[in-house]
Order: sequence, then structure tokens, then C-alpha cells
Amino acid sequence: MSEIDKKTVATIRLLAVDAVDAAQSGHPGAPLGLAPAAHAVWQQMKFNPSDKKWINRDRFVLSNGHACALLYALLTLYGFGLTVDDLRQFRQLNSRTPGHPEALDVPGVEVTTGPLGQGIANAVGLAIAQKQFAETYNKPDLTLSDSYVYAFLGDGCLMEGVSSEASSLAGHLQLNNLIAFWDDNKISIDGSTQVAFTEDVIKRYQAYGWNTLEVANGDDDLEAITQAILEAKKSTNKPTLIRLVTTIGFGSLAQGTHGVHGAPLKADDIKQLKTKFGFNPDEKFVIPLEVTEYLAKHVKANQEVEAEWKKTLDAYVAKYPTEGAEVQRRLSGKLPEDWEKTLPSYTPADKAVATRKLSELTLEAIHKNLPELIGGSADLTPSNLTRTTDAVDFQPPSTGLGDYSGRYIRYGVREHGMGAIMNGIAAFGANYKNYGGTFLNFVSYAAGAVRLSALSHHPVTWVATHDSIGLGEDGPTHQPIETLAHFRAIPNLSVWRPADGNETSAAYKSAIESTSTPHIIALTRQNLPQLEGSSIEVASKGGYTLIKHDKPDVIIVASGSEVAIAVEASKKLGSEGFKAGVVSLPDFLTFDKQPFDYQLSVLPDGVPILSVEVMSTFGWSKYSHEQFGLNRFGASGKGPEIYKFFEFTPEGVSSRAAKTIQFYKGKTIFSPLNRAF
Amino acid sequence: MSEIDKKTVATIRLLAVDAVDAAQSGHPGAPLGLAPAAHAVWQQMKFNPSDKKWINRDRFVLSNGHACALLYALLTLYGFGLTVDDLRQFRQLNSRTPGHPEALDVPGVEVTTGPLGQGIANAVGLAIAQKQFAETYNKPDLTLSDSYVYAFLGDGCLMEGVSSEASSLAGHLQLNNLIAFWDDNKISIDGSTQVAFTEDVIKRYQAYGWNTLEVANGDDDLEAITQAILEAKKSTNKPTLIRLVTTIGFGSLAQGTHGVHGAPLKADDIKQLKTKFGFNPDEKFVIPLEVTEYLAKHVKANQEVEAEWKKTLDAYVAKYPTEGAEVQRRLSGKLPEDWEKTLPSYTPADKAVATRKLSELTLEAIHKNLPELIGGSADLTPSNLTRTTDAVDFQPPSTGLGDYSGRYIRYGVREHGMGAIMNGIAAFGANYKNYGGTFLNFVSYAAGAVRLSALSHHPVTWVATHDSIGLGEDGPTHQPIETLAHFRAIPNLSVWRPADGNETSAAYKSAIESTSTPHIIALTRQNLPQLEGSSIEVASKGGYTLIKHDKPDVIIVASGSEVAIAVEASKKLGSEGFKAGVVSLPDFLTFDKQPFDYQLSVLPDGVPILSVEVMSTFGWSKYSHEQFGLNRFGASGKGPEIYKFFEFTPEGVSSRAAKTIQFYKGKTIFSPLNRAF
Repeated sequence: MSEIDKKTVATIRLLAVDAVDAAQSGHPGAPLGLAPAAHAVWQQMKFNPSDKKWINRDRFVLSNGHACALLYALLTLYGFGLTVDDLRQFRQLNSRTPGHPEALDVPGVEVTTGPLGQGIANAVGLAIAQKQFAETYNKPDLTLSDSYVYAFLGDGCLMEGVSSEASSLAGHLQLNNLIAFWDDNKISIDGSTQVAFTEDVIKRYQAYGWNTLEVANGDDDLEAITQAILEAKKSTNKPTLIRLVTTIGFGSLAQGTHGVHGAPLKADDIKQLKTKFGFNPDEKFVIPLEVTEYLAKHVKANQEVEAEWKKTLDAYVAKYPTEGAEVQRRLSGKLPEDWEKTLPSYTPADKAVATRKLSELTLEAIHKNLPELIGGSADLTPSNLTRTTDAVDFQPPSTGLGDYSGRYIRYGVREHGMGAIMNGIAAFGANYKNYGGTFLNFVSYAAGAVRLSALSHHPVTWVATHDSIGLGEDGPTHQPIETLAHFRAIPNLSVWRPADGNETSAAYKSAIESTSTPHIIALTRQNLPQLEGSSIEVASKGGYTLIKHDKPDVIIVASGSEVAIAVEASKKLGSEGFKAGVVSLPDFLTFDKQPFDYQLSVLPDGVPILSVEVMSTFGWSKYSHEQFGLNRFGASGKGPEIYKFFEFTPEGVSSRAAKTIQFYKGKTIFSPLNRAF
Repeated sequence: MSEIDKKTVATIRLLAVDAVDAAQSGHPGAPLGLAPAAHAVWQQMKFNPSDKKWINRDRFVLSNGHACALLYALLTLYGFGLTVDDLRQFRQLNSRTPGHPEALDVPGVEVTTGPLGQGIANAVGLAIAQKQFAETYNKPDLTLSDSYVYAFLGDGCLMEGVSSEASSLAGHLQLNNLIAFWDDNKISIDGSTQVAFTEDVIKRYQAYGWNTLEVANGDDDLEAITQAILEAKKSTNKPTLIRLVTTIGFGSLAQGTHGVHGAPLKADDIKQLKTKFGFNPDEKFVIPLEVTEYLAKHVKANQEVEAEWKKTLDAYVAKYPTEGAEVQRRLSGKLPEDWEKTLPSYTPADKAVATRKLSELTLEAIHKNLPELIGGSADLTPSNLTRTTDAVDFQPPSTGLGDYSGRYIRYGVREHGMGAIMNGIAAFGANYKNYGGTFLNFVSYAAGAVRLSALSHHPVTWVATHDSIGLGEDGPTHQPIETLAHFRAIPNLSVWRPADGNETSAAYKSAIESTSTPHIIALTRQNLPQLEGSSIEVASKGGYTLIKHDKPDVIIVASGSEVAIAVEASKKLGSEGFKAGVVSLPDFLTFDKQPFDYQLSVLPDGVPILSVEVMSTFGWSKYSHEQFGLNRFGASGKGPEIYKFFEFTPEGVSSRAAKTIQFYKGKTIFSPLNRAF
């Protein structure tokens, strides 16, 4: 290592140590071990701190997000806008240096990490997006995209199933633009990895079809790390995993032990560490001027690279005006004008169709005008109906099954991996709107990724078919009960359950136009009629009145497949002398964003409100006084018979509505929307 | 294959085909391909249909649960109580042959499968339990336990991360009592596995430390399958994966295609299949008498094996009366008498302690008297505090880290695998009460396994620490918001959030005494005071009045760490002239099971009720009129500062209580517990 490299690595290490020390909280071990690799990687990366979202930058993903002090040190040193003052505020409330890397809060952080295994799967998504973007727009004479994705991951990431799923797929897809470093430091929270993690990781990744390399001394051997990166870049058809043997807490008196993983170093230890690295033991947060200047050179060189790239883009736009305009539009984050006019709309005369089929028709209709719309399914394509008729599979050309410009991804039975990959695709930029299909019940397998979509504002979409007991014979293991309650309770997650074709189009309109809110669209297996009174416009409010009465005796509020049943129940109640209004509430989040007056016009004071949905009633009391649902597991049988068995029929609903009317007779009733604070 | 074996295999195949045909729904492909292996395995297995829960039976797990027609055929043929009439009712409402194997509904089904990847992980749990039971009780001269676990799994199971996690751990643990068959039929729902699953599975399992074998012709070669089983049984320190190359839908005109996976065969196809197999093409559900007799021989031989085993048990009880009594007690499913007297109890004079620490004290106190209590952590032992001081790790003795009688399992960072393994341990029987630790937020990674715990009535326990924003610096990626709502919406799942030591003991009392309800115990990182008015007894009702007033102005209902804040708020409100009652509601499910009168005495008519909990308010309107919670993601910072920032303080609560009193002044108020139906 040259002197300046040594000093740079020491600076990174000590900034991280000082940050953890200032917070008296955090993880010094991994930053101490990984600083040389981080330095080597960043010296190979192209990026521009003044144009952080440059589409052809290399991406860096810290899958072992607890090592974020390392990342914050790098972002500070390379001028991404973080300062030493920010480092001093590490892990403090409302600082720009939170306890795990939050992409929304920290300039230069590509994806939010911390929950283990997510980052490496996000990196697979970034790599897919880069390949798809490059293959779609690069021309033999003009290259718009040739960036790499670098990822660091620890033993914890490797133990998580989500990383296994994504890594297996990355091998299949031959993503040679992905270079991952396994921090093989042999320590996890329970102590030595010998207690639980003794598999042969390298062999496993070879089995996935990865290129594997080893760096025996990650603590010191910058040259070997750099060579490994250059070697990895030679891979033509495989992602690369570099086994990097490091010493956790390198330089600390407790190096190589669990003690340095997740707790600040002792004051004496920090002093000896600084002395050992040639720094003043009594100074904190020191950035030697020569280090700043050294790294600034890299930034400057990179800025020239970006300037060249901009010239390439100009030439591209001139020579290929159609694609050029499309690229420019996508980079600006704008959808094609009037794209939404391609959304199908329906009238009650149209036939009854399953909403999963309506979803297919919608995808079919909007696909052509939206090159940024890509998606796939977790091995349920013929059930989810997620593949448009003219789709090309995203596959390595050598497989003969598709090519990298393909917009349909065969995810395999890997829901959690798919969810995290979707987040990575969204994080790439270029306005990607990406979706993934599975049964609603199995979106739960991906719960860890779904909550990160919402936290990180990734506008991804789950096409979640077979959304209730209506799926029938597959039975309770496949029938969602708690699922919608779970996802509705996640902040910033739109959970649509459309009742017909217009509502399905509204759900997609919301999903495609979203820039910061992920969507789950819950869709039926069974046919549903097209409703009188629905339209894309009214459904886009998230909730609206479908059957209106002056002074109704009761309002039935329902979602999805139960709306048509509520309409029938209303008719039946009418014949019994009751006025029953009907409200369709396809998405709680969207409805909650409407003006309060509007909300109250839909669910007004003075009327008892009964909610109907064939799953857990949990949470529905937010919008209703009484709830009819299913607070038990489902049953295996024919869909219509199960509906009947559980009384989700016009009779079952109307009798409960009648009881509701009776129960509230003579009582003063306020809308549940009213709030004391 | 001998003639009788051929006929038996054909019978199995055709029963499955007829069942799917009768239902016009289901999966004929895998049963046709797997029937020979199933026949070979069951001929090697020891079990007694007349004593289905015999502890030393071999276990059979169908991880690819969609192939359940195969399993139902076997259970019918071997006399487990299923009949041909049951097979005729395949997939019909309220039949004993549901669309996936439901352990609760079908006699002889060991674990509920269908959600892919779960079964093989359950099998790992069964194998762990067998090893632990054997090592605990077997004597050099008397063997009580030496059974095997057999599992079938498909490509879908292998793609799921949960199976990767469990398989990696199984290799580490050297579970040579586990023999798994990979149905390598090269077809999944999206078509050829070439589209998404091209990894080298055998190499991957070797990397995990498994013994691997191959059977080139699983369609016909019964001898090779049997030899592979015998070979697998020779493994002394590795689980075995047998790659079984089969033809999906073997014998069908559409064999080897996706077309036979999940749809009934055509009528003509069934006829030619029956003719091909030497059966009358016009008859359905045929069981040749010689097949019945042939299989009855195996059952009879097995019954003799069990009779021998019972003699061994008698000899054991005589020679080792202490262990013998313990074994008998465990097999009867009874807890030791007065075990609950070891539960710690507290008074307000006791110091403030984090509930995670109180959980540790509880485990420490009850551990010695409960040999069936085993548990572990997903690499968070020092944070979850799940390991008792005298614990021995469950490890292969060759590691020098423990032995197989150990009761502490190092799960590694594998939450989903842990959840499914816990289900397997519970399914073993012998009264195992097993727990797993992780942060509450990461129980979500295991959502797929948690819902199966509830559906299958496995009394497993999650020790879920760091249960709120109170965990502090780790920030939003680690702070639960939607988590409790998610789990509370799952039927038959107890979600405890104890507020102090007595409530923690009550939570464990509920968990240990449970025989059919899984528990999640949400525990704090931060210290909480011991409450005036709490006791194990009252907390065991799931909800109770902590501060009682005649005609209160408001009732504040809270859980966990917010109860003490509510108590302070009540005092503050008292000083302002308001009477504020306080209710602690540590577990919704338990509270819901109390007599309605009791519930109404806690949350009565006529008083506005305010709920307080530092996470999503979703679902709380079931118990309260107004909700104070956190319907956004958390923040990174010091725990107490975050509480203050979000106003979860006595002031923040009392001001909202005052607004609640004001808002409801003069209105007629009914308890939210009242229901119209």
C-alpha cells in the first residue's frame, strides 16, 4: 500500500471509530475490517458527488448495513454533502447519519440496508436494471450504460434466505455487472461463525453459477483487492463473489472478537489505534488534507468521465431521436403524455371477469407505451397473468430463451428475493416501474422487502392474485386472512383491492403514477361483474359511494369481490324496506389522503356502517361500526361453496345489515372518521 | 420391480389421478412421478396406523404439499383411517382430504405443507427434536428413539430461501437422521426449470455439508431408490439429499410437461394410463386386494416393532425410574406439577428492568424443571437474552461446542428457517415447548412460518425483543410499526406485549401451558418499572384494570412499555381534576376469550377510551374510541429522545386524553366491545 493509500484507509477507519465513539452506539468492527476494500472499490468506481443520480454511475450497496459508519466516512471524504459535523451526530435523532443507511435521508446512499440479506438482493435488482437499460438503449457506436454494481455483504447476509434466492437468480441471469465482496471475518453476534455457519460459501456460489475469487488478506492487501476487482470485471457471463478474509475490528485490542462488532471501542483502545495508524491519539474526526486532495482527484477524473458521457448522450439524441427522446423522458422521471388514456374502462354491460384477468388486460393495454414497465412472477405466470402477449423474457441470450432487453422476468419461486430485487430495480432510476406477481398470501414471504419498499419510497407493484378464500380448493394454506391488515398497517403502502375493471385500472393508474409509494394490488381468481357507478375517476379517490340514498338506514362498505355482494344485499334490503347505501373502498391509503369533507360525505355521521370483507376484520373499525369478516382460517373447497359456507352472500350480508340497523336504532351515531385529535 | 410392487405403485398413482379427476382440481403430475419413491420410502418406514402418534415412528414430510393426492393415497392404502370415499371427496368443503395436507384435519399427516419450502424446514425441526430426545433419554442398553425423518421436496421448495436457511443449518448440525428426496422433474409452473432455476443443486447441498446421492430413474427403478435409502442410513454425520430424476405426470400422454402439473388429466388420458398400468380403464378408485394384503404385512411387522418398543419402554421405566417417569410424563403431554410456581413474581418495590431481561429471568427460573423447554436465537443471543446460564448448546459433539442433548440452538441469522424448524420441533411431540429469539421486527421475515404455526396449532414461542422505537439508534429499519397489527390479525396467535415482570411471567405461563396456540412475546430493550396492581393472575386474563375509578372521565388502555406512561399520565390528569382509569392489555387473543361481562367491566359503556401504543394504531379501534400511536416509520436516535420526539410521554398522553374527554363530552358513549351480531 502506498503511503497515501495507507493514510486514506486509516482516515476511513478512524472516522468510523470516532463516529461510533461519539454516539456511544454502533458497529466499529466491520468498518475497521472493510476500510481497505471500501477504499479500493471506490477508487475503481465512477460517480459524481455533484450529480448523485447520474444514471451511469457505479452503485455501491452496503448489504451489511450496520457497518454504515464506513459508508458515511466515504460519503464525507468524497464530498457527497455529509460533513464531519454529521459524523459527530451519528445515530442522533434527526441527524443525516442514522443508525443504518437510509437512502431517503443520507445523500449518496443507494438503498436502505440493515435488515440482513436485503442489500445483496437489491444489488441483483440494480444489476438487472442496468443490463435491461443498457441492452434497450445502447447502440454499437454509442454506449449510454455500462456501470457496475458493487456490494459488500457479511456472514449474516449470507445466512438469510433472501440472499440465497437472489443469488441463485443472479447466477442464472449471468449478471456479470455485479461484483460482491463477502466480508469473511468469522464473527457474528453469537460469536464465532463456527457455532452456526460452517457451510462452504464459495462452493455454494459456484453452484449458483457465480465466478468466485479470494483475497487472503483483506486487512492490508489493497493491491490484491484491486486486482480482484479487475479480474471480476473480466467475467463475461457470471456475477462475482470475492471472498475477502478480514479481521473484524482490525487494529483494536479486541480485534477478531465479537466484542468489537456492535459496541464502541474503549477510550484507551481508540488511542492506541490512532497511534498505531500514525494519527494523533488525542484528536478526533481528523481528515488529513492530503487525503482530501487525493480523493478529490478521483472525483475530478470521474467528473470528466461524466462530462464525456453527457456528450455521448447528446450525440445519441441527435443520431437516434426516438430512443433519445425516450431516454431523456425517462431520466426526467416523466411518464409519456396521456399514457393513462390507454387504461381500459368498462360499463356494466361488459361481462363479469376475474380482476386478475382485468389486471392482465390492463398490463396488455399500457405495456407498449411504457418501456419503463417491466415485471415478472414468482413462478406463477399462468395464474398471475402477468405476462403480456408480446413480451420477451429477460434472459441471457445464450439461453435462447430471451435477451437482456426483455421486460419479463422469470423470478422462480422466490418471493422474498423478488421483493428485494424489485426494490433494487426501482432504485436504479430511469423511471423504472416494476411489478412482481405471486398469490396475495405469499407476498407475506417477502414481508421484509415490502416494508423496505415503503420505508425507502420505492414505487414497486405487487400483482397479488388469488386474494381470498375465493381461490377455493388450494385451501387455508393459500387463503389470505391477516394479509391485508398486515399491509394496510405499513405506512406509505397502497393496498388496492379493486372490485371491477374500472377499479383495476384505477389501481394501476395509482401504481404507475406513483414515485414514492409501493403498491399491492389484490386480485381475484373468480369472476366479478362490472359495477354500475364505478369509474376510473371515482375509484381513484380510494373510496366512493356506489349506491347513494338520502338518509340511508345503513351503509355497507366493502372492497374487491365483496362489493358486488354488497350491491345485491342492498337490493335485498330495499325489498325489505331498508335503504342501504353501498361504498366501495379499494384503497385505505388513497382514501385517507382525500379531503376530510369528502371522506365524511362517503362515510357520514348519523348512519350505522357495516364493513364486509372475506378476511380479518382487524382494522376495519376505522371505517365502520360493525364488521363482517373472517377471523379464522379458510377452508378447502369450491370457491362459491366456501363463500356460501361462511355466509358471504347477499343473504348473509343483508341479515347482518338488518341486525346493524336494529342495534343502532335510536342511538346517536357518529362517523368513525371523527377524531378527538 | 416385482409384480406386486408394480401393482402397488400403479395403485398409488391411479388413486391420486382419480382423486384429482373427481375434484376436477389438483395436481396429478407429482404423484405420478413420485409414487415409486413414496412406495419405497414407506416400505422402509416404521409406523403404526393404529397408534399414529407413536413417538418412535419415522416421519414423512411432503414438502411439495400440492402433491397431497399421493399422500392421501398412501394413508388410505396403509389404513390410517382415510377411505376411498374420502378420496372421492378430494378438495371438497369439509372433507378429510383438503387441497393441501392439513395436519389438523387429515389423520397421519405430520405437518401442514403447501407453502413451498416449509416442509423441508419442518423436517429439519423434526430431526433436531429426534436427536435431542434420543440423546437425552437413550441409554447404552435401551434405545427409546432412533427414528428417521423422510422428506420429499420439489424444485419450488429448493428455490425458496426458507429451505436454504434450514438446509444450511441441517448440514452444520450433521443431522444424519434426515433423508430428503429432491423430485428433479425439471418442471415448475412457469414451464421448464431452465427459465429460472439452473443452479447445481447437488453441489449446493454438498456445500451445506450434506451427503448427496442420485437415482437416475425414479419412475421405475424401485431397487435403486431402496438402495439409496439404505445408503443414506449409513451416513454418520450428514443429512442426505437424494436427487431423484422423475418424469412429471409419468405415464400420461402429456408427461414431462407443465400441463400435468396443476390440472386434472383428460378422460382419455386417464383411460390409456389405466390400461398401460394393467387396470380396467372404466373403473375408478380401484384397490386390488393383493395390494391391500401386501401393505398390511408391512403394517403388521411394524406393529410388532412397536410392541417391542413398548417392552423396551417398560424395561426403561423399571431400570431408570427418574428418566422413565419423565418420558412418560412428556409422552402424556402433561407439564410437571406446580411448574408454574417457579415463575418469578414482582412487587412495585422491585427495580425497573427491561422486559427482555425479565424474560431471561423467567427462562432461567423455569428452565430446570422443564426438560421439554428448548430454544435458541437467530444470532441475537446477547440481545434477546435467550440462553440460560447453565445451557448446553445443541451441537454435534465433534464440534466441541456442545452435544445433542443440548437445549440451546444456535440458529444463525435465519429467522424464516428458525420459524419453520420450530414448527417441526413442536410437531415431533414429546411435549416439546420450543422458542426462538429475534428482534420483533424480524419475526416478519418468518411470516410464512408464523401463519403455519397458527394454522397447525403448534405451541411455539417467539421471544421478540427490541419491540418498538424504544430500541433507539438502530432506527426505522429495525423498529416495528405494523408488526403487532400483522400478528394480531392472524387467527389463533397469541401476541403478548408485557408491561412488567408479572406480565412477562403471565406471558410465559400462557405460552408454556399452550398446546395449540403459538405465542409471540414482544419485549423491550429499555427498562420498565414494576407496576402497582399487576400480578400473574390478573395479567393472565389478557387485559385488566390497573387504575380503577368510579365513573372515570376517560380510560387509557395501553400495552407494554406504554402502560407505565399511561399510569403517569393518569396521575397528571388527576392533578388537573380528571379521573383517568388505566387498563393494561398485554394480549388481545386472551382478553377476547374472557367472559363478555368481564371484558365489559374492563372497557365499560359510558366512558371514552383512548389507546396508547408506540406503533400502528391499526386494529386498536376494536378496544378504544381514540388511538394514539405511530402511523409512520420511526427514527434513529436515543430511545428516550425518540419517545419524547413522538410525544409518548405522560404529557403527550394526558393532553390527548384531555382532548378525548372534551370531544366526547355530552355524547352517549358505548363500549367498542358491543356488537350488533
